[in-house]
Amino acid sequence: MKERKVLINISNRHLHLSAEDLEILFGEGAELTNIKDLIQPGQFACDEIVELVGPKGSIPGVRVIGPIRKQTQVEVLIADTYKLGIPIVIRDSGDLKDSPGIKIIGSKGEVELSEGTIVAARHFHLHTTEGAEMGFKDQDRVSIKVGGERGVVYENILVRVADNGKHEFHLDVEEANAGLVKNGDFGVIVE
Amino acid sequence: MKERKVLINISNRHLHLSAEDLEILFGEGAELTNIKDLIQPGQFACDEIVELVGPKGSIPGVRVIGPIRKQTQVEVLIADTYKLGIPIVIRDSGDLKDSPGIKIIGSKGEVELSEGTIVAARHFHLHTTEGAEMGFKDQDRVSIKVGGERGVVYENILVRVADNGKHEFHLDVEEANAGLVKNGDFGVIVE
Repeated sequence: MKERKVLINISNRHLHLSAEDLEILFGEGAELTNIKDLIQPGQFACDEIVELVGPKGSIPGVRVIGPIRKQTQVEVLIADTYKLGIPIVIRDSGDLKDSPGIKIIGSKGEVELSEGTIVAARHFHLHTTEGAEMGFKDQDRVSIKVGGERGVVYENILVRVADNGKHEFHLDVEEANAGLVKNGDFGVIVE
Repeated sequence: MKERKVLINISNRHLHLSAEDLEILFGEGAELTNIKDLIQPGQFACDEIVELVGPKGSIPGVRVIGPIRKQTQVEVLIADTYKLGIPIVIRDSGDLKDSPGIKIIGSKGEVELSEGTIVAARHFHLHTTEGAEMGFKDQDRVSIKVGGERGVVYENILVRVADNGKHEFHLDVEEANAGLVKNGDFGVIVE
């Protein structure tokens, strides 16, 4: 069977904002400033950054990713959960019920979230056509291997197939460093 | 075949000091203060901490591990190499030739290393008797799997069998977080 290669991109800690929280953090009428389009269509890195404050510590310089969402979602690394002093809750994007809260400080104000702080579950985006070509459907689970001196097989990866998806395997910084993976490297589907 | 379980322990960034560097950093006649014995016989965490300073940034609070060694060896995370501004050089302990230098600041003085800063290669310690029982010899390579929602197979792990070794698989913090592994968890040898 033909080796099936997968493009890897790495997410650092970041957050998505609701329209209401955007105005509280950055002022009335504030809009997100796109500084770089991301691979997933419509997603972009913003000029706006915030500070996260937990019961034990804080992390400055955390970047906002646009566009606006219905609910604010903060995505941190496991190391960050220790620093902030919050539980490790690994979730798929959007699944925020009963996840830890956090305080967010922007340039114009602050928000105290009651929930919304997650460690994002690793996932593999595909467009519907790409999914059909590769033999995957939405919500499948797959393993992806990277070689080299820190070779790793990432297991239990959620496959997300959608009409607005695009081929891209998302790891966070710690997952990537564990496998000595850099942005734009390739992994291989493990049969 | 019987499932072969492996005890996992996690290393944070740390350093080993030469006798000469110990005196420069902590004063003439300074000795290491054992605050906790580690699993590997004769190894211990020390009360002494230092600051690491690289071309781009610094990291305070880095713990010394005893006993004294012939050559000072600094073991950092991949994330630390970006913060410090030094190349990523993954090495087995003791293999320091042409690895990056670093500045170390102690309570009484500082040392400018010309080499000795590595990201430690993941490795699996065994006593000679344990190695024979598990079917491993020194310098073998093995893969070890952890399950769960962040399931990972760590590949290309160096096996170190020695008369002063003791059963223990060493991961660094980023490798552990990638697999949601905690100190004292178990992995399984992948046949």
